[in-house]
Amino acid sequence: MNFLEERILKDGVVKEGNVLKVDSFLNHQLDVELFDKMGEEFARRFEGKEINKILTIEASGIGIAVAVARHFNNCPVVFAKKTRSINLDGDMYMAEVESFTHKNINNVIVSKKFLSSDDKLLIIDDFLANGCALQGLIQIAMEAGAEVEGIGIAIEKGFQVGGRTIRNLGYQLESLAIIDGMDATTGTVTFRPQ
Amino acid sequence: MNFLEERILKDGVVKEGNVLKVDSFLNHQLDVELFDKMGEEFARRFEGKEINKILTIEASGIGIAVAVARHFNNCPVVFAKKTRSINLDGDMYMAEVESFTHKNINNVIVSKKFLSSDDKLLIIDDFLANGCALQGLIQIAMEAGAEVEGIGIAIEKGFQVGGRTIRNLGYQLESLAIIDGMDATTGTVTFRPQ
Repeated sequence: MNFLEERILKDGVVKEGNVLKVDSFLNHQLDVELFDKMGEEFARRFEGKEINKILTIEASGIGIAVAVARHFNNCPVVFAKKTRSINLDGDMYMAEVESFTHKNINNVIVSKKFLSSDDKLLIIDDFLANGCALQGLIQIAMEAGAEVEGIGIAIEKGFQVGGRTIRNLGYQLESLAIIDGMDATTGTVTFRPQ
Repeated sequence: MNFLEERILKDGVVKEGNVLKVDSFLNHQLDVELFDKMGEEFARRFEGKEINKILTIEASGIGIAVAVARHFNNCPVVFAKKTRSINLDGDMYMAEVESFTHKNINNVIVSKKFLSSDDKLLIIDDFLANGCALQGLIQIAMEAGAEVEGIGIAIEKGFQVGGRTIRNLGYQLESLAIIDGMDATTGTVTFRPQ
């Protein structure tokens, strides 16, 4: 069992409806030492890939991405925004994304200034479930002509379709913890062996 | 002139309506090396303060806060959320905040689990203008009984009331760059001498 799986068993809380709460260390209160370890592990898993930029999505992806960037030569991080902002003028890439958590549709937006065909991207996010957010980011990367060299996820819900779909498309998707099942009554979490 | 002021002159863009675009390094594409330097400088300015937690607000504050935390003994970062999420159950602190940028009102929310009277906070954010977001964070900290040891801001618009108000209330507010004036026609930015 790796460090993230251990942490999930220690501090994660299983709720009804296949909800795993990891807000004490991953997406509300942030354990920056844990994030640093995640960066170290992603650097190991994506060794040899020429990555020059990290792409993520607000809000929970940002903290992880910034910590991970240290392990990829301090490359810049670009985060996609979920709403149109008056500060985000000029041309932008846009994809429509349905949120599993919030049950709504967001426009995922990245300024055209910050993605180009020169970019070799590592996409980073905290969760992968049905994969809509991730598909939006990949769509934007393709539109920019950028290469998606790899995808690094903290926690994948392996019993939802997102991960399988992305791997079927040929991407190197590395999830530090893949959950195959959760039981809210007993509080148990079953990880896929890696 | 410090490293952030120099970077603003190099890569910032002044727009009509007192808008300063720094999206190439601060709040859309993120320069993690710059964030690390900011952390170093905040550590110098808040030397001797017992800080055990960093409080920030999504989205642009998160990346800076995670980089800054490394310079404060890898203390945890808590970010306030701007909308109610179905994953954020249980008791929460809430403050109403008016956004200068987006011209709307948000509920700023922090779970009660992650702020308490044991906490000595450093509040971090990217921008300070009229100070509404910051006031919301201070309100939440006070409600939790936490101590606000300091406030670290990347860019303060010194010609708006936020900074003066917060300093008048007795807080140690450190802004790495304080802008006293901007001119969109000439593209000039005038910094307050520090």
